[in-house]
Amino acid sequence: MAVYTDVGDEEIAAFIASYGLGAVVSFKGIAEGVENTNYLVETERGWFILTLYEKRVNPAELPFFLALMEHLAGSGLNCPTPVRDCEGRNLRELAGRPAALVTFLEGLSVRRPTADHCREIGEALARMHIAAADFSMRRRNGLGIDEWRPLYQRFAVRADEVRGGLGALIETELDFLDAHWPRHLPEGVIHADLFPDNVFFLHDRLSGLIDFYFACTDALAYDVAVCLNAWCFEANGQFNITKGRALLKGYDSVRCLTDDERKALPVLARGSALRFLLTRAYDWINTPPDALVKRKDPGEYVRRLSFHQAVRSEREYGLDAGLGAGPP
Amino acid sequence: MAVYTDVGDEEIAAFIASYGLGAVVSFKGIAEGVENTNYLVETERGWFILTLYEKRVNPAELPFFLALMEHLAGSGLNCPTPVRDCEGRNLRELAGRPAALVTFLEGLSVRRPTADHCREIGEALARMHIAAADFSMRRRNGLGIDEWRPLYQRFAVRADEVRGGLGALIETELDFLDAHWPRHLPEGVIHADLFPDNVFFLHDRLSGLIDFYFACTDALAYDVAVCLNAWCFEANGQFNITKGRALLKGYDSVRCLTDDERKALPVLARGSALRFLLTRAYDWINTPPDALVKRKDPGEYVRRLSFHQAVRSEREYGLDAGLGAGPP
Repeated sequence: MAVYTDVGDEEIAAFIASYGLGAVVSFKGIAEGVENTNYLVETERGWFILTLYEKRVNPAELPFFLALMEHLAGSGLNCPTPVRDCEGRNLRELAGRPAALVTFLEGLSVRRPTADHCREIGEALARMHIAAADFSMRRRNGLGIDEWRPLYQRFAVRADEVRGGLGALIETELDFLDAHWPRHLPEGVIHADLFPDNVFFLHDRLSGLIDFYFACTDALAYDVAVCLNAWCFEANGQFNITKGRALLKGYDSVRCLTDDERKALPVLARGSALRFLLTRAYDWINTPPDALVKRKDPGEYVRRLSFHQAVRSEREYGLDAGLGAGPP
Repeated sequence: MAVYTDVGDEEIAAFIASYGLGAVVSFKGIAEGVENTNYLVETERGWFILTLYEKRVNPAELPFFLALMEHLAGSGLNCPTPVRDCEGRNLRELAGRPAALVTFLEGLSVRRPTADHCREIGEALARMHIAAADFSMRRRNGLGIDEWRPLYQRFAVRADEVRGGLGALIETELDFLDAHWPRHLPEGVIHADLFPDNVFFLHDRLSGLIDFYFACTDALAYDVAVCLNAWCFEANGQFNITKGRALLKGYDSVRCLTDDERKALPVLARGSALRFLLTRAYDWINTPPDALVKRKDPGEYVRRLSFHQAVRSEREYGLDAGLGAGPP
């Protein structure tokens, strides 16, 4: 949530000149995104977001993200569209950082999603999966199941500082997931981080998806499980089955979940809860309490994980007989 | 340079509803201003800046600043204009903070001002002084000459940590200024902080002034002296007399400097250099080197002060016989 790289107004004016968007008329650093520096740029042709990719981003992966956004936008999905300069480049360098200019999306994030928002999220996620079906590039999930144990090892000795018993809980879950993870579900490009922060609504209709920097090739239904965790739990930690049902119905109305995908939901939801528990616990240990970046509570994901561990059937997420391609 | 107070999108939508500006369509925290939290808000009627005043601001002074901006904008000066809600209030409360919505100004700041920019600054400053002449409210300069010694006392024992000999230099200068400060110059509302950050240009013409939160009632020519320090020194610390002349000519073409004001310029420039030296030295000592707020080098103002101490006549700022109301 900060501007890590300072760009002068003269520098930005020169940089933008080669995009054919007219002159820059305003330029503000925005407090958006935890990892990169973002500026809001107004030119004579409208508003854009300029992103400078900071050191946690691997520059070799940027062409994947930019090509994906371009592909999705070209397929009619409302997402930031990389702008190409007069030489056709969508990735350049500014102030010593890889830099890209993308279109600005109007819309607001919701902090207290309703079931209607959840239905729209389900639909939009499925539309994204379908739009990406003919996208040819691949990217391994850098935070997929095979990375969870190594990530845990990096803070294992301090896990119980976060919360008593956390280490044992994670180890047991890692063993369970290794034994039960579904390895043959339909794959494609997933967003992998479709939290409310990354979705815009305008007048209560979904107006766009942003932040594709965790996007990768993985099981499509895993993306659904991420959304169940991100959208369908209440502030008090309880799962809201009305929201779950709305999200799954929304998804299924655009892309039918296969029988295998439906059955896999509980274990996918456990895996997704563990994935966010692991990164939050790691960040909790490695971020000083007084840092400007606010630490997110790992405990939220302990509670979500407990819920999923107790789930005995995909029905408990709101999937019902009328849903899905499989038998009831 | 940070968002200190986090406002949710639902909260902002409800807050803006009472301004009659249509619905909020986007909302971004911006990294602008060191002391307050600023958001850029787009509504169906256009773009606005929402400021939440943080704890360093005295809420009792906000009506002065807002009324001043309203007065200046009403007089045709291009500056942020406070927007009143449907109950006529320009100052409200949001997230437990005093909050105001002002119009958004297009334009970019210059980091390497030219003599042309300096001329425009001189003109705009004089226009502001004239536009404020019939503004009835007053505000004491909280960083005026009478505050310099008390401010110095707060870090005197550590002054030499900033730079060897700094304590003695400041003490000698405080004595000199007490003895020579001109107390009977024409007064009015001054901006008091018109640095390049606070001035916008569009297509090389000055398009607006912002950040009136140091504005106060003081000698008008002191504001000119602040601008000489802020605009007319090169990065290497040297005074650029071409820029000084342009700034003074620009000012004088709109509001004639009196003979007393012209003669007082060297001591006013010393005072203004000391004022910024004092606040920078204080902040240097009180800001950890690794804080996200970048500390500004107090040494810059030691060099400016030395220059002014050696000045023997206002002519050395570029004032020449053809300028001003007084004799050559």
